[in-house]
Amino acid sequence: MATVGDIGELALVERLAAQVAAARLTRTARPGFHLRIGIGDDAAAWYGEAGVWVATTDTMVEGVHFTRETSPWRDIGWKAMAANLSDVAAMGGAPVSAMVTLGLPRGLDAAAVDDLYAGMIAACLRYRTPITGGDVVSAGEVFVTVAMMGICGAEPLRRSAARPGDSIAVSGPLGASAGGLRLLQAGRSGAGDEEEEALVRAHRRPEPQLEAGQRILRSGIRCGMDVSDGLLLDLRRLAKASGVGARLEAARIPTVPGLKALPDPLSFALGGGEDYQLLFAGPPQVVELALESVGAGAVIGEATPDEPGVVRVMDAEGREMDVAHAGWEHLR
Amino acid sequence: MATVGDIGELALVERLAAQVAAARLTRTARPGFHLRIGIGDDAAAWYGEAGVWVATTDTMVEGVHFTRETSPWRDIGWKAMAANLSDVAAMGGAPVSAMVTLGLPRGLDAAAVDDLYAGMIAACLRYRTPITGGDVVSAGEVFVTVAMMGICGAEPLRRSAARPGDSIAVSGPLGASAGGLRLLQAGRSGAGDEEEEALVRAHRRPEPQLEAGQRILRSGIRCGMDVSDGLLLDLRRLAKASGVGARLEAARIPTVPGLKALPDPLSFALGGGEDYQLLFAGPPQVVELALESVGAGAVIGEATPDEPGVVRVMDAEGREMDVAHAGWEHLR
Repeated sequence: MATVGDIGELALVERLAAQVAAARLTRTARPGFHLRIGIGDDAAAWYGEAGVWVATTDTMVEGVHFTRETSPWRDIGWKAMAANLSDVAAMGGAPVSAMVTLGLPRGLDAAAVDDLYAGMIAACLRYRTPITGGDVVSAGEVFVTVAMMGICGAEPLRRSAARPGDSIAVSGPLGASAGGLRLLQAGRSGAGDEEEEALVRAHRRPEPQLEAGQRILRSGIRCGMDVSDGLLLDLRRLAKASGVGARLEAARIPTVPGLKALPDPLSFALGGGEDYQLLFAGPPQVVELALESVGAGAVIGEATPDEPGVVRVMDAEGREMDVAHAGWEHLR
Repeated sequence: MATVGDIGELALVERLAAQVAAARLTRTARPGFHLRIGIGDDAAAWYGEAGVWVATTDTMVEGVHFTRETSPWRDIGWKAMAANLSDVAAMGGAPVSAMVTLGLPRGLDAAAVDDLYAGMIAACLRYRTPITGGDVVSAGEVFVTVAMMGICGAEPLRRSAARPGDSIAVSGPLGASAGGLRLLQAGRSGAGDEEEEALVRAHRRPEPQLEAGQRILRSGIRCGMDVSDGLLLDLRRLAKASGVGARLEAARIPTVPGLKALPDPLSFALGGGEDYQLLFAGPPQVVELALESVGAGAVIGEATPDEPGVVRVMDAEGREMDVAHAGWEHLR
């Protein structure tokens, strides 16, 4: 098995560039973008129309955000790309360019790098995002940094635009990714059970909500973010940025059927990260329009004039719950 | 002394965001760019006019690209930003946005992170580049990744556009950074000697040639790149990408006075990296116009119909030289 050190960084870059070329990753879902110069020059170059551009970057480090023992390299690649795509979705944008930086130990099997990249390319094909460049560097542990550009059809969704009285909604079910992780940790692959399979798939190949984000933005919503660290934690952030409190109705949070077989399904929906659904807020009638346009999701609560950033969770009988699970912050 | 682990990544991000806010890094040298959303949302957002956009990314890893024993953190920060600014310069572009990802060991002194960031901010202020976001992650060794966007006033300079008969030129003196490194390695700080000081400054604070790149592009030049890994190596790359050979006249390569005091000054000019001057090619009269517009630099050779990528170096008497120093590739 050839290692990264055997092949050398220059040859490895050529090999990855060939993977990108073979995938013909030049189109985007957004017209008005034309790639002029791809991988191999000092920088990538494209023609872009005038508009509101968004840029985001996200890094995954081995031993911190993933371990090679528990995640196949392809899934790690998919997730590294999905996390950035989800940030673009959270602004209501369409992705137009991704740059990929890989930090690689010299002893790493080169086939692992191919698999990692194949996972990224799969996500880029699915969401039509050209890989326009990057960097490969020697490092003590594997890290993957994606820097992504996108463009919005209107003023982007921001975290700080919720007002008291706004409805708060999500674009789809929560907790599935965390539920899938729990199954995998218990040694269950989900094979043969449709509901369990859906959980495991949600964990291994989370789907950024790009189409939903654009629909929400077009519906007139101004406030939104993605749920990447858990609903409770992310809603607190949105509320804090907006200077509002929030009331969450636990019974209204959409989940997937498979969760009900796990102990304490609500904790997964409230605390589980990496679902990449969108959390958004706006006047009730605008939120209704947006949900109709998305064709999924639900209203789960409302913004209040309470202390900024404080989220109260209510049960089906309207009593405030004592919420122990507050999501996890990893190292963000 | 507080460490990164003591402070925690979230607090550290806030601290760095405060540094960026205090520096008021919102203007660019290029009109038509208006920052809408900076650090703190899912992504940064700005309004941008239609045009040709460029994007590049570059990473520095401790122990590979720098050591904290030999480089002050501020210089490391400056260089991380300068390398990316130089890639934008190499396209003939103006920078409009930088995203910074830091990989930090938990035990690292937090003051080191402040200094690293101060060096980046200094470069961003100098070249008017807003820092629009980034990521801070835990890692076994320090790494710094910058992802930068820019915009060009015309079709960008590319490596592949040289033709046989073109003049080859550089935008300024070469070898100064490598000369400065040699002095530092010999325990000399350059203090008190103007020529030595210039070498050390060139190594510690290399200046990306943004203004020169834009002038070269406006002069009608189509082919260019930056000299980041040494003239000989980078010229080979340009020649190979263009499908031409090249003849280099050693005596015409501009250098700085301080180099003459070092043994074998030509080896620094041919092999020394990180000068970040621009290397460009075009019809002789266009190159003359560009050099006039830049107000520095010189013609150093010409493109030939020889085997693509082969560079012959001639001495002052027109004899081919045997060139042992071929630049260094680090891990690019």
